[in-house]
Formats: sequence, C-alpha cells, structure tokens
Amino acid sequence: MSKGVTKQSDDFAKWYTDVVRQAKLADYGPVKGTMVIRPYGYAIWENFQRILDRMFKDTGHVNAYFPLFIPEHFMHKEAEHVEGFAPEVAVVTHGGGKKLEEPLVVRPTSETIIWNMYKKWISSYRDLPLLINQWANVVRWEMRTRLFLRTTEFLWQEGHTAHATAEEAEEETLKILEVYRTFAEDFMAMPVITGQKSESEKFAGAVRTYSIEAMMRDGKALQSGTSHYLGQNFARAFEVTFQNTDNQEELVYATSWGVSTRLVGGLIMSHGDDKGLILPPRVAPYQVVIIPIYRDDTRALVMEEVNNLVDQLDKVNVRTTVDDDQKSSPGFKFNEWEMKGVPMRVEIGPKDVEKGQAVVVIRHSGEKHFIKLTELAAFLDSHVEIIQDQLFQRALDFREENTHTATTWDEFKDIIENKGGFVKAFWNGSADVEEKIKDETKATIRCIPFDQPEAAGKCIYTGEDSTQQVIFAKAY
Amino acid sequence: MSKGVTKQSDDFAKWYTDVVRQAKLADYGPVKGTMVIRPYGYAIWENFQRILDRMFKDTGHVNAYFPLFIPEHFMHKEAEHVEGFAPEVAVVTHGGGKKLEEPLVVRPTSETIIWNMYKKWISSYRDLPLLINQWANVVRWEMRTRLFLRTTEFLWQEGHTAHATAEEAEEETLKILEVYRTFAEDFMAMPVITGQKSESEKFAGAVRTYSIEAMMRDGKALQSGTSHYLGQNFARAFEVTFQNTDNQEELVYATSWGVSTRLVGGLIMSHGDDKGLILPPRVAPYQVVIIPIYRDDTRALVMEEVNNLVDQLDKVNVRTTVDDDQKSSPGFKFNEWEMKGVPMRVEIGPKDVEKGQAVVVIRHSGEKHFIKLTELAAFLDSHVEIIQDQLFQRALDFREENTHTATTWDEFKDIIENKGGFVKAFWNGSADVEEKIKDETKATIRCIPFDQPEAAGKCIYTGEDSTQQVIFAKAY
Repeated sequence: MSKGVTKQSDDFAKWYTDVVRQAKLADYGPVKGTMVIRPYGYAIWENFQRILDRMFKDTGHVNAYFPLFIPEHFMHKEAEHVEGFAPEVAVVTHGGGKKLEEPLVVRPTSETIIWNMYKKWISSYRDLPLLINQWANVVRWEMRTRLFLRTTEFLWQEGHTAHATAEEAEEETLKILEVYRTFAEDFMAMPVITGQKSESEKFAGAVRTYSIEAMMRDGKALQSGTSHYLGQNFARAFEVTFQNTDNQEELVYATSWGVSTRLVGGLIMSHGDDKGLILPPRVAPYQVVIIPIYRDDTRALVMEEVNNLVDQLDKVNVRTTVDDDQKSSPGFKFNEWEMKGVPMRVEIGPKDVEKGQAVVVIRHSGEKHFIKLTELAAFLDSHVEIIQDQLFQRALDFREENTHTATTWDEFKDIIENKGGFVKAFWNGSADVEEKIKDETKATIRCIPFDQPEAAGKCIYTGEDSTQQVIFAKAY
Repeated sequence: MSKGVTKQSDDFAKWYTDVVRQAKLADYGPVKGTMVIRPYGYAIWENFQRILDRMFKDTGHVNAYFPLFIPEHFMHKEAEHVEGFAPEVAVVTHGGGKKLEEPLVVRPTSETIIWNMYKKWISSYRDLPLLINQWANVVRWEMRTRLFLRTTEFLWQEGHTAHATAEEAEEETLKILEVYRTFAEDFMAMPVITGQKSESEKFAGAVRTYSIEAMMRDGKALQSGTSHYLGQNFARAFEVTFQNTDNQEELVYATSWGVSTRLVGGLIMSHGDDKGLILPPRVAPYQVVIIPIYRDDTRALVMEEVNNLVDQLDKVNVRTTVDDDQKSSPGFKFNEWEMKGVPMRVEIGPKDVEKGQAVVVIRHSGEKHFIKLTELAAFLDSHVEIIQDQLFQRALDFREENTHTATTWDEFKDIIENKGGFVKAFWNGSADVEEKIKDETKATIRCIPFDQPEAAGKCIYTGEDSTQQVIFAKAY
C-alpha cells in the first residue's frame, strides 16, 4: 500500500528510500548491507540485462562464468589491486566443517581469477582477442550502504578482454564506454558525461579508467559505469604471454569494464518525483497499466474493450498489465501505479465505452488525454517513444540548468555550497590539489570530459595555466 | 585442437572429462572443486536459462534475487535442514578486515533466507500465492567433484513458492515437475522418469521430494531436477503465518524446486559418442556449421553461396556459424565441429557450386546428403526438428533396452553387476532394506515412479507383498 513518500525537497535521501521500499523494488536482507531485489525491481534489472547482453554480443563478446572464490594469494599478485580491494573483502576460512589451508576471498571483482585462467588459454596471437563477459554477484564489505547504490553484495556484469596490442585494447575500452553511454541515454533516458577518471579515482590496477557520470535530481553525481584500460598489469602479474606474429613472446594487453545494479538506483534518482517512481518506457516492466472501472452490471461491457485493447497492444509489443483487483478502489490503484512509475495509465469505465473513448494519463507530465477507442492502441504505441524522448530531454535540461562554470575559487565554493550540481572548472592535474578541494568542499573530480573547451584556462585552486577542464561534484 | 577422446567403452568417466575439456565446455578453477564454465558451455546454459525462464513465467512465476550470505543461526531453525546442509557449507568469518560477530554461511540453497523475508511480506491470504524464482550461484563443499555434475559452486535456479493450502502447494510441486519433464524431453531430448524420492533420498526439510531421473549412456542414473513439497516446515521455523479467509492465523504452505548446471552434464552423457559431443538442435548454440572449401581463385564463388545460405537461415532463425578460418584444413574443422556436437555440417566447395549442390552431414548419424542449393535452407530448417526427434527416440530406445525387471534377488544382483541400467523391482518401503540393497550392490532407489504396474508384487529383498515398484540404479 502506498502511503506516499517524503518530498524530494524535504529530504532527498529519505525520498529515495521511501520510493525503493514502497514501489517494492528492494528490501534490506538480514545481514548488514545486503539487499533483496524484489520482483518489480528485478524486472527492471532483467530489462537492463537483456538490452546490455544484446549490445555486448553485437560487439563480438561472449559470456562465461568464473568461480566465486579466489585463493587469497591471487589478490596479492598485482600491487595496486590488492591495496584497493583487500580492505573490503569477505573471507571464507572454513569449508565442509574444516578450516581451509588457504583462506578464500569472495570475489570483489574477477580480474585475478580470470587472468589466472587466461594464462592457460592464451599462447598465440591466434587466441586473441578474447572477448568475455560474465553476469555475476560480487561482494565488497561496505560500511555505509544504501539499497542499489552501495550494498555489500551486488549484481553486475564484468567484461574482461585480452588483446595483442595496446591500441586494440584501448579501442575496446572506449568502444564499451560508448556502449554504456548508449545504454544510459537511449534506454535509461539518463544523459551522461563521458570522460577519464583522475589518477586518484581510477580502478585499482588500471592504467586508465573511463566512466559515464550522470546527474541525479538532487544535483549529485552518480558514477554509472566504468571501463578500464589495464595495459599489461594483470598479464605481468599472472605471467600471461603470447607469441606475436613476429614469433616473439609478449605480455597480453587487457581491459575490464562493468555496470551493476547501482544503475537501478540511478534510474530512480534520474526521473522520480514526489509521487514515486517514473520509468522510461524502454526499460519499464510495464509500459501501460489499464484500470477498468465498472460495477457488476457493466463489467462485461468494460472488460470486452479492455481485452480488445490488450490484444492490440500485445500485437505491437507494448508491455501491458491490467489491474482488475476488485478489493481496491480506482483511486487507490492510481496512486499505486504512479508509485510504481508505469509510463501510461488507461482508465476505462462504462461511460467511456458509451462515448467510444478512454482516458490516458501520462505518468511524468500528469497530462490527461481523452482518446477514441479506435485510436487508443496507436496512441499508446506511439507514446512509448514520445515519452522516452521527453524523459531524456527533461533530464538533459535539468542537468544543463544545474551545471555551472566556475572561474574563481570563491565562485566555485559558492556553487558547491549553495547551488549544487556539476561545476566545470580548470584543474592543474595535481592529485594534491584534487585532495585539498575535496577536503574543503566535499566535491570530487567526476571525470575529465572528452568534450573540452577550445580555450585554455586557469586552475580553479592554484591559478596556474591549465588546458584541462574537469567536472566537479558531490557524488554518491 | 581436438586430439580425439577416450572411447566410451574403454572408460566412460574419462570419455566424459575428455569431451568437456576438448569441446571447451568447462575447466577446473584454481580452488579445489570449482569450475570455470567456458563460453561454449555457457552458451548451452544460456539456452537452458532462456527456455526455462520462459516456462516459469508462462506458469505465473517472477524472478527476484536474495542475498548470498545467510546468518549461521538461520540454518539451525529447521532441524532436518541443518542436519542435511551443515556438513557441506562454506563459512565466511571475516569481512572488511574484521572478524564477524556471527559467521555467515554461503548459501547452499536459499529456503532459510527466503522464508525470513516471506515473514515480512506475507500477512494475509491476499498476499498468496507468492511464486518466486531466482537464478543464482550456490556453494556446497564437495569432496569428490566432476565438472558440471558435482562442483563446489554451481549455477542453478531455485523456485520458492508460498501458498494458502496444502493442496495448492502440492499442485505447484507437481506442475513444476511437469515443466522439468517437458524441458528435459522436448528440449534436451533426454527422456526422464518422473516419480517420488524415497524418505532417505528426499530434500533435507521437505515433506516429499519428486524428481526427474534420466539414464546416461553408461546406464547410470542422473537425478536431473527436483521439486519439493515442504508443507509448513519452513513456515513453522520462520514463523510465517497468514490470515486465512476465515480470519484465522495459519502457517503458510511451501514448495521449492531447482535444476542446475548439472543438466549440462546430463546433456553430454545422454547423447555424446566417441567423436565427442552431440547436441540436440533446440539447445545447441549453433544448429548448423558451414565449412566453405576454396582456393584463392574460387573464394568469391564459394563465399557468395555461403553468404546467401546464411541469409536464408537467419530468416528462419536457424542458428548458424561459418568456419572460414584459413589456418586450418577442412578435415581438421570437421573433427573440431564434430567434437563440439553441432547437429548439421554443410560443406561447400567450387565443384559443389558448379553442380548447384552442397554436402550436408548429420552429426549423430553420420548420414551424408547431397542437397541442391535451391533446397538447402529448407532441408536444414526441417532437419532441426527431425534431428531433435531422432535424438529423443534414440535416447528413449537406449533407456528401454537398458531397463530390466527383476523378480528375484539373484536376478537383481546379476543385472546390477553385469548389465547395468535401470532395474524395476518391488520394494517393501523400508529404509532399512533400501540401505541394505545399497550396501550390497551400490544401487539406490532413484524414484517411486508415478507410472506403476497394475499387479502387485513381492519385495525384491524380503519377498514381502508390495504394491510399490521402484527404479533402482547406480547413480551420479
């Protein structure tokens, strides 16, 4: 039952939790920081999986599955990797009633176990490239957790590719970043900025990390997907060489990349409002909910039109559900399905049938349309794409309105403190300066965007000349 | 590279491992008993998932995801359950660098964590039935492991449903058993016997367990899927009650059911031969492999026909791959794709094109057909179902040939020792007798089939009157 949610403007964090719980997307599990993904939330994730999996396969990737347990000493083979992940792993020490000789790490990410296998599988340039993805659960021990955004266990896909040249691996890294951008923008209707992470924010073990960064409706940033160029770091750690076309042994070049159930959190915070969830049609479990309104004597009349409409929508692949539950009132149902963010609601009662029409309410705009029954299926079908575009444009407009350029330090601090959102500013590239800005304002460098202004500028903190404009923001 | 496999008649177990490794289906992971599912093996599992997931949804089920980690004390709430699973769990004792207050069990199955959630979600008959499935990894510490058949970690689906009445839960249990039977027979072309497990073989915590049992090509049985009626055992342990239509609090009735990556092992051992894998078309990653044979000057001629054929097969959704690798000879490729069990191979060379024909070789029968190019796509398309049926019939004939009825104990022992396969025999229902038969012959009761003879008989061991004919076999 929808009890209404906290207003976004009152407490955005509480609004988020209310929506997740009341739309029945997820629940906390019994172990601290773990999450149960409920059927409605999982249906969104399944749509994400279906679309992304198709995109990965269309770009030549295949799926495989690697073990959950990693021998502890594997983690130590790549120096930066162990430093980054060791503090947050869960460790299995007992199995089958006995203490294990070597503790096992529950995978926080699979580079080490995968490169241990690649050593067996790769010996020649003929074995390359190896383009493998896996859909899996991973565990990272988190102190402060939030449903979908940061949980001890989460679901994700992790791609791990092996290449004969640095150029080819770099190309793969950027190709996947583009897949992620396309998925975020065209399916989630969530505009993203693509760019490179700073040294201090890159993946532990990577040469370079690229990311897509989205703005949530509270102005904060959500890192929504990352793609890493790993160079020869893991090949060196696991001694994976190949015979190149000149018959010489060379270390293999690598990439890895992933998106997770965190994206569901991004979807919620990109579009939702004070009535609850708003789902872009392309990823919504249901695109249309039909609510028949009748009494016993008008039931047959109304349901005939409803069934007719369902058949028509099935034919054009519009995902439809009918809420024919007789224990709830129409008003209750309207609230319920608004909370669940279904893009379009159709109301049909006996008077509507007499007039040969139905009422369509668009979730995100609240617009009410009276549509002839003969034109109803076509109207709904066409509005799948219309709403999808409107939601993207609305999110893009919101991001533009909340993105500011700062040229002085005072201006920078004022924006971060009083306006929020993204701040574009030049930076001298120093990790030390990055750290100081973070300490003073809590804003971090989200990325160094590919899209750079033509003119150079001055570092926002030191005033030094800089050719590198970056995006600062408070982030999830 | 295919080096050929051990003959089935020489050493079936070694044949199995050879096929799994050489067809690149799976590999052992670095931790004892763990498995890496390689892309070709995973593609078979993805087909299984796609088909089963559709069947579950068509019967009203939805997917969700529950946490990997279970607080240790949950396992102790259902007495039989903990007795069955405690000896084989992996235990996490440290997280985030600290010793945990309570150890966490890595799920061996999810009844406990799911019923802990159901307690929150169920309060009235209106909340029932709850029909949830999850696709997940589970861990059971195994001493003797074999790829796909018995591994420390495996992938599976586990359904967990909650109902208002015992009758409805029983009906669900049998409905799912029928889904499993249909999947095994119609998609895997693997005939199965459906029936109930004996008390000693039932799931730890169930009232009754039903299973599908298949015969492998060495005559041994493979339990391929189980469906459990759990009664109110887990509802009692986790205090899950609902208000029934008479406004009274009642314990909820439950089922659970699952199939796993073990099915891939069943597929291999149901159909494979001394040349390697044989895949039924409906679950094969590729149904047709086309091998073009040409020299530089005939390449264009041949590839035009190949591309034409690929287009035609795409249109009728026949899954096709072209092996155009120029580094291997046609003979090498024939062996390779036979090892991988692709149902149909098409060979096209310049002389074939001149004659307006191609050669089609059927993997399981070795039959060679010369087919006109104009009729080729239709021939291949129609043979998807023809081969599917032939493989099922072949497996069914094999099972019938290797199923014997025993009426005396000597006869029973002789069959088990010298012939193998399934033995139908009457049993007095005593767990003690079951145990003695197992000790003396290594044969176990696979199931008490639904399909029973009209006449009663005598218990094979005690000579007592019995109305219960069961299937005995050595099993995986």
